[in-house]
Amino acid sequence: MGGDFGPSVTIPAVMAILAQYDELRFILAGNEASLLRIQQLDDPRQSERIEYLFTEEYLDNQVNPLHAIRRHRNSSLFLAVDMVRNGRADACVSAGNTGALIMAGRHLLRTLPGIERPAMMATLPNLQAQGSCLLLDVGAHINSSAQDLLTYARMGGIVAQYQLQRKPRLGLLNIGAEVHKGTEVIKTAAQVLSTSADIDYIGYLEPAELFAGKADVVVCDGFAGNITIKTSAGVVRAIEALWLQIAGRNLINRGRALLTASMFKELQQTINPSLFNGASVVGLDGILIKSHGNTDSEGFQAAIRQAVQEIDAGLPGLIGAGFAS
Amino acid sequence: MGGDFGPSVTIPAVMAILAQYDELRFILAGNEASLLRIQQLDDPRQSERIEYLFTEEYLDNQVNPLHAIRRHRNSSLFLAVDMVRNGRADACVSAGNTGALIMAGRHLLRTLPGIERPAMMATLPNLQAQGSCLLLDVGAHINSSAQDLLTYARMGGIVAQYQLQRKPRLGLLNIGAEVHKGTEVIKTAAQVLSTSADIDYIGYLEPAELFAGKADVVVCDGFAGNITIKTSAGVVRAIEALWLQIAGRNLINRGRALLTASMFKELQQTINPSLFNGASVVGLDGILIKSHGNTDSEGFQAAIRQAVQEIDAGLPGLIGAGFAS
Repeated sequence: MGGDFGPSVTIPAVMAILAQYDELRFILAGNEASLLRIQQLDDPRQSERIEYLFTEEYLDNQVNPLHAIRRHRNSSLFLAVDMVRNGRADACVSAGNTGALIMAGRHLLRTLPGIERPAMMATLPNLQAQGSCLLLDVGAHINSSAQDLLTYARMGGIVAQYQLQRKPRLGLLNIGAEVHKGTEVIKTAAQVLSTSADIDYIGYLEPAELFAGKADVVVCDGFAGNITIKTSAGVVRAIEALWLQIAGRNLINRGRALLTASMFKELQQTINPSLFNGASVVGLDGILIKSHGNTDSEGFQAAIRQAVQEIDAGLPGLIGAGFAS
Repeated sequence: MGGDFGPSVTIPAVMAILAQYDELRFILAGNEASLLRIQQLDDPRQSERIEYLFTEEYLDNQVNPLHAIRRHRNSSLFLAVDMVRNGRADACVSAGNTGALIMAGRHLLRTLPGIERPAMMATLPNLQAQGSCLLLDVGAHINSSAQDLLTYARMGGIVAQYQLQRKPRLGLLNIGAEVHKGTEVIKTAAQVLSTSADIDYIGYLEPAELFAGKADVVVCDGFAGNITIKTSAGVVRAIEALWLQIAGRNLINRGRALLTASMFKELQQTINPSLFNGASVVGLDGILIKSHGNTDSEGFQAAIRQAVQEIDAGLPGLIGAGFAS
């Protein structure tokens, strides 16, 4: 039900993913009329792999997360997260109210031992090299402490180590590379990280360096991280819109744009924000994926794929084991 | 002397600007050998409009701004700002150490009555419409209070009112549009702004909306603002680099790219970060422009043009009068 477009985006994404993964099954939580109206049951084999959990209650973005637990326990969002808690589902994917989702995750799934707060972890493309970069926290918690940043660093480090099978390079997002830059929280975290043996700490990174392949993991406060990913996506979308404006101005431009269409497609396949949609809520005893609320079906599919990867990796178990050792 | 490239960028920019403005004169502060080595005195009329203030001391980015006042009073940066204080210069443009420049500005030029802290104000392009958007603070101060944000709002409002000759639309940068989003500082500022008569307050803006022409002024903490402008510029540069990679891969791509070169040029003229270089340090009794340290000659020229515009507008006087009334 979540996100700016609700089932009109999430259900087509589910249908597309069903066609790509044979063994995947979905439980759709939400309003009966809304879900059934949009679902297109053209392939009966697919419908066998869909169950429903109907509820009338829906928790929109205007709901203050602080009120969500007390007043909205029967919302589709809470019920979906609760299916991960009780083992009926292996992962939950939602484009809904971020704060409420984090709250539901902390309350129902609980954080892993040694982790006070979960973080939202995004995957960013490296534009100048192969590979990608994990950025966390991108919005689970604003006003992170130095201890929070260290927890994020450790979680990101465990995930990157698993993905890359080598010691990951870790940076702290800051407004400059010099030691005197940044908040006291960042400076304190930097001091601790610079003496860490598990991690290849490379120092402060400025936002532009996020896309340059310098680091495998970058850690920041949830406010700064959220600003970073939303600015990045916004600039990409704005450039696309501007290019379409220029390309559509007259016949000559249209013809020229057509000739470079395949090159543009390649560019888009590297930078399209939809392909990097789906932030992992790490640090919980269960898999929870937050999709951007404003995404399209392609973006929601990417979020579902992120969930599948984390089920395959057994991500909460990996992080739990890392913190236990 | 400032910035990543020093006189090799700043002096060619000065030469280019001299050729464009007949009445402008420059005083270059810095190391004698460095300045004279790079200056190309091909046009004697231009050299008549250049004076020098030589000093051996240079304050690099590694210097902690807190030590700058005590230990580096004879640095080119301090001497340049001091020329604005004593009336020898109408404005100071620097690509040097941001923290030290703000410190020198506060210490030598002083803030205007009613203003506790200056802010760095950037101009962002509207990509989907004509016009631009003022964003402040982009890095003069991290950890802004609600009162700071209100001061920034008032300063930005005065400048936008002067530029647009109408009541400006003002937004607060936040991680979501909903009232429960953001820090306590942002929520407090929003409450006050929503009752303000001088300003058309339009609420919270997410970063992607900065480029959409929704607001004339957007206010934020210096950390978030700095992250925003550096992420924006970084994404634009990364996309350019990626396009050049794709376009240069083979002869066919090169030919196709050539056909769309004029369209690309148009795109770049709207979004090229260099064209928007030059943040105005507003709130001081004097004109101070901070250029990005990593900019090229074109970018430094934009910063100088920003200074010329502020001299013409008498910006400190405008802001002072606004706060006095």
